[in-house]
Amino acid sequence: MPELRQDVATREWIVMATERARRPHDFRVKRGRADLALSGDPCPFCPDHEGLTPPEVMAHRRVGEANGPGWWIRVVPNKFAALIPEGSLERKPEEGFFRKTDGVGRHEVVIESPFHDLCIPLMDDWQVEEILWAYRERFLALQNDPWVRLIIIFKNHGLGAGTSIQHSHSQIIATSVFPLNVRNKLYEAARYHDENGRCVYCDMLNEELRAGKRIVQETDAFVVYHPFASRAPFETWIVPKAHEACFALISLDDSKRLAHALRAAWVKLHEALNDPDLNYVLHSTRSAHEGREYYHWHLQIIPRLTTPAGFELGSGMYINTALPEETAAFLRGMGL
Amino acid sequence: MPELRQDVATREWIVMATERARRPHDFRVKRGRADLALSGDPCPFCPDHEGLTPPEVMAHRRVGEANGPGWWIRVVPNKFAALIPEGSLERKPEEGFFRKTDGVGRHEVVIESPFHDLCIPLMDDWQVEEILWAYRERFLALQNDPWVRLIIIFKNHGLGAGTSIQHSHSQIIATSVFPLNVRNKLYEAARYHDENGRCVYCDMLNEELRAGKRIVQETDAFVVYHPFASRAPFETWIVPKAHEACFALISLDDSKRLAHALRAAWVKLHEALNDPDLNYVLHSTRSAHEGREYYHWHLQIIPRLTTPAGFELGSGMYINTALPEETAAFLRGMGL
Repeated sequence: MPELRQDVATREWIVMATERARRPHDFRVKRGRADLALSGDPCPFCPDHEGLTPPEVMAHRRVGEANGPGWWIRVVPNKFAALIPEGSLERKPEEGFFRKTDGVGRHEVVIESPFHDLCIPLMDDWQVEEILWAYRERFLALQNDPWVRLIIIFKNHGLGAGTSIQHSHSQIIATSVFPLNVRNKLYEAARYHDENGRCVYCDMLNEELRAGKRIVQETDAFVVYHPFASRAPFETWIVPKAHEACFALISLDDSKRLAHALRAAWVKLHEALNDPDLNYVLHSTRSAHEGREYYHWHLQIIPRLTTPAGFELGSGMYINTALPEETAAFLRGMGL
Repeated sequence: MPELRQDVATREWIVMATERARRPHDFRVKRGRADLALSGDPCPFCPDHEGLTPPEVMAHRRVGEANGPGWWIRVVPNKFAALIPEGSLERKPEEGFFRKTDGVGRHEVVIESPFHDLCIPLMDDWQVEEILWAYRERFLALQNDPWVRLIIIFKNHGLGAGTSIQHSHSQIIATSVFPLNVRNKLYEAARYHDENGRCVYCDMLNEELRAGKRIVQETDAFVVYHPFASRAPFETWIVPKAHEACFALISLDDSKRLAHALRAAWVKLHEALNDPDLNYVLHSTRSAHEGREYYHWHLQIIPRLTTPAGFELGSGMYINTALPEETAAFLRGMGL
């Protein structure tokens, strides 16, 4: 059973992922580790290997039956889930002073394509639309658990971004605790709304459009830009122009526009930076009514080009070695 | 001139390190990058290369003159400083909505030994004592700048921990802004003190000693343990038993004891995990009177054995794949 432990001093929650725990001696560093592509294990996300994953919770397929081939998108529970939909939400009294609950939550994997080597910048727009629509479908399903506090949809691409499996996939985690960082972010957005009567993300977007110099691409419904206070080189935000706190309210048309914007943004990074390792994260409230006035969902892409080190670990403050004005101009100039 | 930019939505500060900025195209990923040890450049931290660094701010030497050889420990300003002691603390009105100041601060490098290949677990205790005493000396000097809000002393060991130079060194950064994470940590410690009349770090330490199972080593003055809510496998805290908020108040005797505890803790990690990449950070208030009742300085070691990925970036919540009870027992059992 995974556990959630709270740091009494900071109120941060930590997931103890016992389902994926390794023994202490397994952490011994092996020098000259092989690249992902060189692993000889069969890929659990390829067609005909459906038995290597837990049974699917959703799939779109042309032919065939559940948990067999014929699908073009497939969602399964993570076999080594960080959180599982079992156990109790109560604090564990046996730990006394220390704070701990069962690791209640859900952890799913979106297998994005039947093709092993096809990452999003190499897919056609239609496949990316299907991925985003599947995100929405699972988001709506996961909202129904009464204990859900946060739903995070994210992608790890490349070894340096924490991937362990090369086959293109993303992950969805629903938590039963409210992480401190997210609580702070919502609190600050609410304060800004109190003071100004407007959404801080709407204001940031409009100011970025007015400044212009950090914009990578503007479309009818979305703006792609490198934010003024970027934490990392080439950090890219994709923000809907229409104010909406919860991603799951996206329309079919807008999800197609988002697919196009996401693929185009990643293609630029892929070409400019030689297929960099990257993460993306979909920031959203968990439901339509939460933070409705003051939060604004968005997709954040973080290429892993530099390594946060001791200063960042100690202060929580990032050192960025590139100016977003320059990186955005560089991508605009590529003419892709 | 470096800049400090604040994220309006979260109030987080970001350092724009223009002195170390690279051009956008320099971020292009090079596959098969060589290891640090293979670089052909002369080491700027070795004796007889003193001219490759800015003039020293402090050194201990047996013979010779400033900025020449003969030293056993040497502190210099970082040649590619993230923050510099110039410019203005005023907000820049030309950015309008966006918040920005000059990147005021200090950034120093502690060159820990004249020997190129000698990292702390391989040094003798005496040399480590000299390093810690130099930390204290620089801490006391940096306190004197009236704008100092935080002094962070940290170490990056190995490529995966963000080192760019192999020669054993640590860094000190003094900031002119108060990072959000540190503000939150002090606020929560003050609340705990309000409620209980005691320091939360003292209470955590006593509860860890009572539980016993996460202790790696207990000495007269320090306890080395893997905390209940560890963020990462083998995360190690070295905490003084005596309550004190500010590291700079450490006595000479206690700094010797800390040197011994730090070296012993790192030797265990070095042997158990095959010289893992790691960071350590010294958490302290900036001066003797700040947070005196409720904060408690400590040294945190984080081996870089797993990669924080999209979930951590999105939620600020860490997934730890090892139980601190097990890792601490493993290190205790090594008999080192």
